[in-house]
Amino acid sequence: MEKLKIAIVGYGNIGRFTLEALQSAGDMECVGVVRRHASREGFPELGPYKVVSDIRELGKVDVAILSVPSRSVEENALKYLAMGISTVDSFDIHTDICALRSRLSAAAAASGAVSVISAGWDPGSDSVVRALMQGLAPKGLTYTNFGPGRSMGHSVAAKAVEGVRDALSVTIPVGTGLHRRMVYVELEDGADAEKVRQAILADPYFSHDETHVVPVESIDALNDFGHGVNLVRKGVSGRTHNQLLEFNMKINNPALTAQVLVMAARAAVRQAPGCYTMIEIPVIDYLEGDRESLIKSLV
Amino acid sequence: MEKLKIAIVGYGNIGRFTLEALQSAGDMECVGVVRRHASREGFPELGPYKVVSDIRELGKVDVAILSVPSRSVEENALKYLAMGISTVDSFDIHTDICALRSRLSAAAAASGAVSVISAGWDPGSDSVVRALMQGLAPKGLTYTNFGPGRSMGHSVAAKAVEGVRDALSVTIPVGTGLHRRMVYVELEDGADAEKVRQAILADPYFSHDETHVVPVESIDALNDFGHGVNLVRKGVSGRTHNQLLEFNMKINNPALTAQVLVMAARAAVRQAPGCYTMIEIPVIDYLEGDRESLIKSLV
Repeated sequence: MEKLKIAIVGYGNIGRFTLEALQSAGDMECVGVVRRHASREGFPELGPYKVVSDIRELGKVDVAILSVPSRSVEENALKYLAMGISTVDSFDIHTDICALRSRLSAAAAASGAVSVISAGWDPGSDSVVRALMQGLAPKGLTYTNFGPGRSMGHSVAAKAVEGVRDALSVTIPVGTGLHRRMVYVELEDGADAEKVRQAILADPYFSHDETHVVPVESIDALNDFGHGVNLVRKGVSGRTHNQLLEFNMKINNPALTAQVLVMAARAAVRQAPGCYTMIEIPVIDYLEGDRESLIKSLV
Repeated sequence: MEKLKIAIVGYGNIGRFTLEALQSAGDMECVGVVRRHASREGFPELGPYKVVSDIRELGKVDVAILSVPSRSVEENALKYLAMGISTVDSFDIHTDICALRSRLSAAAAASGAVSVISAGWDPGSDSVVRALMQGLAPKGLTYTNFGPGRSMGHSVAAKAVEGVRDALSVTIPVGTGLHRRMVYVELEDGADAEKVRQAILADPYFSHDETHVVPVESIDALNDFGHGVNLVRKGVSGRTHNQLLEFNMKINNPALTAQVLVMAARAAVRQAPGCYTMIEIPVIDYLEGDRESLIKSLV
């Protein structure tokens, strides 16, 4: 069987872990990396791979994995879909997912390609579990409790505060979908720690949550890709109450995101043209291997 | 929107909970119950429903929910599929699932109907979680730990032993997919407890597991539909080890099985003709409600 030809677009953390996930998959090959500046400098692991600024230099590409920030997803997806190249991304702005899906759907259908959006772990694989839990107990409450782990958005917001050289915001689950923010800050020389604390507490990113600001010597020394989730639902099946469902993960965050992108790329070539979120695709389509063997070992 | 017309075939524990799940669903209605002897005696809740011995007396039926023992699934499914009526079941003999799928697939395709098989919680919804976990960490080990809860098959085997009036075998998870069997027995008058114990320990149902036989006054006094599962996977995403995934449930067993059957009936009418296990169907198809709203609230 011919391997799927996959291009990685963007080469930050997620891009690097995506390359490792592709190298570990038996049914796919990375045909190259697309970067704004076509350079492999600083990335010895890219030695055997083409690095280009235009995907057309890579020849046939079945799926482009967009390991770019959420804000750049749509522009990239539209470009590649127009070329008939399927795309997958881990777009994570929850409120915009439906609108993005509908815009990419038209583009994908027009060129006969497939786009799988929001294919990370949340949104993404967690969404599949949330949907399943909703089915198992249609009435009830689901809580998604994140962490402990770094929140990129909150870290960037804290770093933007005057007097902060570097910052790390760690999300701590306190239950029922609420979170504490532990904000570690490396202060600039002469910065006023109390002023920095007040500015962070007043920021809309933090003002609604319990937030603690902790000055530290070095943010780099705290860096850890570990993250987690605790997804719980208590609800009603039929007329039977107190059905208790729970899903937990303790994972390396970019490694899992990259693995989900690779799963989604595999599923993309198995769907009819259009745009899909992960809950709209049969779970078996994400998996490597023969269909009957998968059913035998997993059902 | 017209409600889906559902018939319940068989009216044991699962059938009764299926009726409750249908009554709680906004998009389906129970058009009747099919039983070998068309009687509603002893079941006051069947008052408003037709009870028949031949499904053709119910008029149009979209899906027949087969709440019958696994051994009777194929015969029933073939009969209804031949009439163009889609079927769902909770067939749970793991080793026969692939073969059943292939036989029902031909029958379903021939009449333009759909069959969703092995739609309980294991096999069934657990299979969806196992498949997802396999995708998230393609290398590694998954353990499915059942219980505490009653095992029907083991209870029946213990009850068949001479000197046993009634029996309840409870499955206790001891980790890594291994289980302890706690076998509660109500002895017949004059039965030799030690002889009964030896006979149970020698039975192939029990000889491979740690088994304890406990004589009790009344099995009825121990009856509880509660059950549970702990599904764990530790594995590798890409080249990143120690990814920890876990799914837990503490549930009323027949209520959850019935709810899954009802989910599967909803999904059946949304698939192309053929036979499916649950991992072959998009999770969103199991859910009641408008597609866009579901994506908004769950993704």
